[in-house]
Amino acid sequence: MISVSARAMASPTARFNAVTIERRDVGPHDVLIEISYAGVCHTDVHHARAEIGTTNYPIVPGHEIAGRVTRVGGDVTRFAVGDRAGVGCLVDSCRDCDDCLAGRESYCRIGKVLTYNAIGRDGKVTLGGYSERIVVDEAFAVRIPGAIPLESAAPLMCAGITMYSPLRHWHAGPGKRVAIVGFGGLGHVGVQIASALGASTTVINKTEQQMDDALQMGAEDFRTTQDPRTYSDLANSFDLIVSTVPVTYDLDIHLNLLAQDGTFVNLGVPEKPLSIEPYSLLTNRRSIAGSMSGGIPETQEMVDFCAEHRIGARVEVIEANYIDEAFNRIVAGDVRYRFVIDGSTFAE
Amino acid sequence: MISVSARAMASPTARFNAVTIERRDVGPHDVLIEISYAGVCHTDVHHARAEIGTTNYPIVPGHEIAGRVTRVGGDVTRFAVGDRAGVGCLVDSCRDCDDCLAGRESYCRIGKVLTYNAIGRDGKVTLGGYSERIVVDEAFAVRIPGAIPLESAAPLMCAGITMYSPLRHWHAGPGKRVAIVGFGGLGHVGVQIASALGASTTVINKTEQQMDDALQMGAEDFRTTQDPRTYSDLANSFDLIVSTVPVTYDLDIHLNLLAQDGTFVNLGVPEKPLSIEPYSLLTNRRSIAGSMSGGIPETQEMVDFCAEHRIGARVEVIEANYIDEAFNRIVAGDVRYRFVIDGSTFAE
Repeated sequence: MISVSARAMASPTARFNAVTIERRDVGPHDVLIEISYAGVCHTDVHHARAEIGTTNYPIVPGHEIAGRVTRVGGDVTRFAVGDRAGVGCLVDSCRDCDDCLAGRESYCRIGKVLTYNAIGRDGKVTLGGYSERIVVDEAFAVRIPGAIPLESAAPLMCAGITMYSPLRHWHAGPGKRVAIVGFGGLGHVGVQIASALGASTTVINKTEQQMDDALQMGAEDFRTTQDPRTYSDLANSFDLIVSTVPVTYDLDIHLNLLAQDGTFVNLGVPEKPLSIEPYSLLTNRRSIAGSMSGGIPETQEMVDFCAEHRIGARVEVIEANYIDEAFNRIVAGDVRYRFVIDGSTFAE
Repeated sequence: MISVSARAMASPTARFNAVTIERRDVGPHDVLIEISYAGVCHTDVHHARAEIGTTNYPIVPGHEIAGRVTRVGGDVTRFAVGDRAGVGCLVDSCRDCDDCLAGRESYCRIGKVLTYNAIGRDGKVTLGGYSERIVVDEAFAVRIPGAIPLESAAPLMCAGITMYSPLRHWHAGPGKRVAIVGFGGLGHVGVQIASALGASTTVINKTEQQMDDALQMGAEDFRTTQDPRTYSDLANSFDLIVSTVPVTYDLDIHLNLLAQDGTFVNLGVPEKPLSIEPYSLLTNRRSIAGSMSGGIPETQEMVDFCAEHRIGARVEVIEANYIDEAFNRIVAGDVRYRFVIDGSTFAE
């Protein structure tokens, strides 16, 4: 076993405290990654505070991991010591179902193992990226090209792929009009990707303070949910809307922005069921869909795409001692646009 | 003007009474159709009883019209006297928007004119098929091949195209697993179409009494909503589900039957908004969509397809005096599977 310094929460209301956790020994197919940066995703807050599903305490969150390979198993073929590598939401899956064989591991219903707060194949609770090092099967690591700073790459492992996958699946590209609802951790990466894919991209956000950033990142238009003209001017105009909003809000008013055969992709998991007037979908033959992160091959494709187009998350680098405060600021919407923890600060 | 015997309701609670209505003179592009049969759609009940939208009384419902051309305007090119012809939900549209130009007149947002209870270009309320004759622009009539009896063809003009359009749009065909939820006026035509398109077709219905009919019409499997095994056996198995259910019901349990990238098409307009748990869509990257009837070119394609595959509605032919009773029986679900009014019985 490999002893690793980490940060954990012992209960929904506890503060993070420094702990030592055990990683498995590096198996033939494993790589050991020295974590340079770990992104702080809003989902981490939900799990750590037991706001969704079941939380196994002590919890070590973190599924936006970027670092360097420091050891490789004997059968590893894709990584060498010193390589830059990333780990996202998944560390394992059944590898044998139709979804896994098609590279859609995030949809595996048989053996998907999330990076933290899940039960791994060894029966132990998985422990995430808020730690110095992680051991992972090379099949669940991706290569991070040198063009992306590691601190900007870390959030791509969740936020990036969660945006890239639906944008690609629903054909964001030249001639397509795309809206991103919510300009936060996911949205600010999504705008860069949609724009780089060639789509005409509009941001719809609660407040207008982020307008300059959005336009600078590739948005052609920026509207606020406060302005009624947003919903009259843009009615029936988008081929694709990707909503990153994690709370309950008026879906119908946004569905009405979809053009003929347009698709609204909901990435959020609000506390209440989605409520939709039938005519919001009947009109223009609209669809609403869900999308759940992305598979490993697509994550590699996304990272390569981001490197090629100089896309990365805009981050605020924090120390491990600051995670509690970061959680509070995330809940308050006070982050531009992603916290990443400096991996060198986990050691006490 | 052309005087025509018809049946109208004067208020939401009135009985149908015999009336004489005026049809416009046959213009250069018009055809006069002697109505042989007029289907009775559940929507007729909703409009006549003022259960949806605004009703203009007296109302003459009917948008499932099949008959013979008895007069043609000077510029008519597609019809001759004696031809079999059908009229569906639309009698006009703007003819100039992207939707109209693409043959998607049912999605025209500018000048769509429904066959009854709408305001036509002449400013008058449109009057539907519960009448002896109708005058319609040939652009909104379709040719009915001789292979389909007119009484079986009439319901195709609404029920048929409403099923055909989504089945085609979402690629029902060989290798695809399709479920039709609800085996009534729409569902029993949908099963025939889906099966003829080559899809493996399952019916999910409230009661099992219709099982033999469904299997005879091409269904490979028939399940009831009462049987919990329906939802365990069929989980994650369909590429496409088309729901004809017009009332509020548990959508999540049905969305869970969709395979990866499957689409649930909702044709109904329940009284309450659709309620959907986010994970019902996130899992398997599912979609829920609406579909609103179909355009004129596709309606012609559908009728030709039905003629080729010997598809038609199974009907109970009634006299005009029976419409009130038919309405009550429709509401009670007591019809197999569509009432059609014998057009020769409108005259007093």
